Amino acid sequence: MTKGTLAVLINSTQQNWLPARWKTRFEAVCGGRRVVLLPDAGLDPAEVHYAAVWKPAPGELAAFSNLRAIFNLGAGVDALMADRSLPDVPVVRVAVPDLTGRMTEYVVLHVLMHHRQELYLRQSQREKRWEPKYQWPASAVTVGVMGLGTLGADAAAVLRRLGFRVTGWSRSPRSVEGVECFHGAAQIDAFLRATDILVCLLPLTQETHGILNRDVFAKLNRKGPLGAPVLINAGRGGLQNEADILACLDDGTLGAASLDVFVQEPLPQDCRFWTHPKVVLTPHNAADTDAEAISAYVAEQIARFEAGAALENVVDRARGY
Amino acid sequence: MTKGTLAVLINSTQQNWLPARWKTRFEAVCGGRRVVLLPDAGLDPAEVHYAAVWKPAPGELAAFSNLRAIFNLGAGVDALMADRSLPDVPVVRVAVPDLTGRMTEYVVLHVLMHHRQELYLRQSQREKRWEPKYQWPASAVTVGVMGLGTLGADAAAVLRRLGFRVTGWSRSPRSVEGVECFHGAAQIDAFLRATDILVCLLPLTQETHGILNRDVFAKLNRKGPLGAPVLINAGRGGLQNEADILACLDDGTLGAASLDVFVQEPLPQDCRFWTHPKVVLTPHNAADTDAEAISAYVAEQIARFEAGAALENVVDRARGY
Repeated sequence: MTKGTLAVLINSTQQNWLPARWKTRFEAVCGGRRVVLLPDAGLDPAEVHYAAVWKPAPGELAAFSNLRAIFNLGAGVDALMADRSLPDVPVVRVAVPDLTGRMTEYVVLHVLMHHRQELYLRQSQREKRWEPKYQWPASAVTVGVMGLGTLGADAAAVLRRLGFRVTGWSRSPRSVEGVECFHGAAQIDAFLRATDILVCLLPLTQETHGILNRDVFAKLNRKGPLGAPVLINAGRGGLQNEADILACLDDGTLGAASLDVFVQEPLPQDCRFWTHPKVVLTPHNAADTDAEAISAYVAEQIARFEAGAALENVVDRARGY
Repeated sequence: MTKGTLAVLINSTQQNWLPARWKTRFEAVCGGRRVVLLPDAGLDPAEVHYAAVWKPAPGELAAFSNLRAIFNLGAGVDALMADRSLPDVPVVRVAVPDLTGRMTEYVVLHVLMHHRQELYLRQSQREKRWEPKYQWPASAVTVGVMGLGTLGADAAAVLRRLGFRVTGWSRSPRSVEGVECFHGAAQIDAFLRATDILVCLLPLTQETHGILNRDVFAKLNRKGPLGAPVLINAGRGGLQNEADILACLDDGTLGAASLDVFVQEPLPQDCRFWTHPKVVLTPHNAADTDAEAISAYVAEQIARFEAGAALENVVDRARGY
């Protein structure tokens, strides 16, 4: 029996994500298995057993009737879940330690930037002002992490090690050592009330769409050491109401925001986020995926699956992540 | 027997360091002991058993013949060691967990800023450019920590947790878990050659004065992922040759620098550090001391000492720290 083909479908303009590079990488780790790039007019759809994809358009995978598993080459599966014609096979979310580590770097960096008054200190440097302001200790600041999966739990652990008080909120109950955990709609207000820095790592689903809005920002702790609460969103742009963020930064409901993701990417030139003095903007690079590690992970999962073991990190379609 | 007087001598212009505030704090924690502020013309020098000081001028403590211990209200004792007329009693360096945690915050923040290309990303935001560059993982970057005392060891531990390769250098042999440790003049070149980000937390002594100079910068790793090596100095300004730092930033020997300390503080208005695009400058606030924690520490040490126990964190005058 010949091995089923691995079809690779990449919709990305990033240099490191060129489809041809992904094909080469998969060929290097898939031990003789045929690897094809989609779209491929000459391909017999029936020979494709696996698909490794990033942001396929709705319908692009519908024709593959012998598909056994779909591998999503990143953490967010919202693009796949939005495809009503997706074949009913397991969707595996790629989770490699490298990606978790990169996200933790981003979260820790941006929490520390706001905690340690970097916006003020950079402005002081530009204005040649030697005027240190009181620096509160990490123990006086509560970081609230929305989303307590692999990424949220790892970031929370390092923040705790740095001395921050860390709380967490997730859809369903979670337990993370040293982190006061809240869950569900009934507990979100209690979670928000104590939060000085809100870190959002939620998956984008129908339930979480637009969850970062004025109602939520208005409930954050307004009496904390930072003066006004801070938003850090490294989840998905669809989680945030961007008009609300701008209005809340302007009226002081929010003191500052670090945003890595946006409703429209690349961010349009006329968006006020670019120039807002309270916004620290990054071009969706919080957790670049390590293509080598991810292709190796996919190859390993296929080998395990064909040897009879269960796939890991399978998405729950009912929950949407 | 009445308790010996605690004399407090503060030379600082910082708001939080007002001498009168220190007097109030010590009175609150010293259980009835007399607390006086120096200078005090009516004071009988013989009644002073303890001095709590920050940067006394040479000679200011010479008259206190019954002194039993001097408490230095911060980590660096270089100002005290420079005083040839200092009474020959134990000098205790105040080390509270709070101070260690703050320094670790500073080190982790600035290592992450350079590692994650913050100078480039802020410039991109100012120019409205959505152009992520490849982000190397922490495991590809070696952070070399000079000074492996309490502060260096704690920062190294968190950097390791974030995935960095961490090495260390100190005057005498040290052992820190997970950190490749170098020591002494014979091993400094090997330490520097592998270092992408150099973090300096050394004490200022005759041996370390001016140690951050072109000779040292030229030995750092020039083939690392950051392109050119980075300097982070949160020790003392006297450790650095500032003309060399500027020249090395200009000619590319150094890629960037985070500087919290300077030869002259406040930094003079005409210093190029203020405006250099590769310099991230902070006004000597890396590790603000928590006055409450420090005054409590001093009171506790005095109580222990009077109960017959040994003082902790006594400075080795031969080494100078």
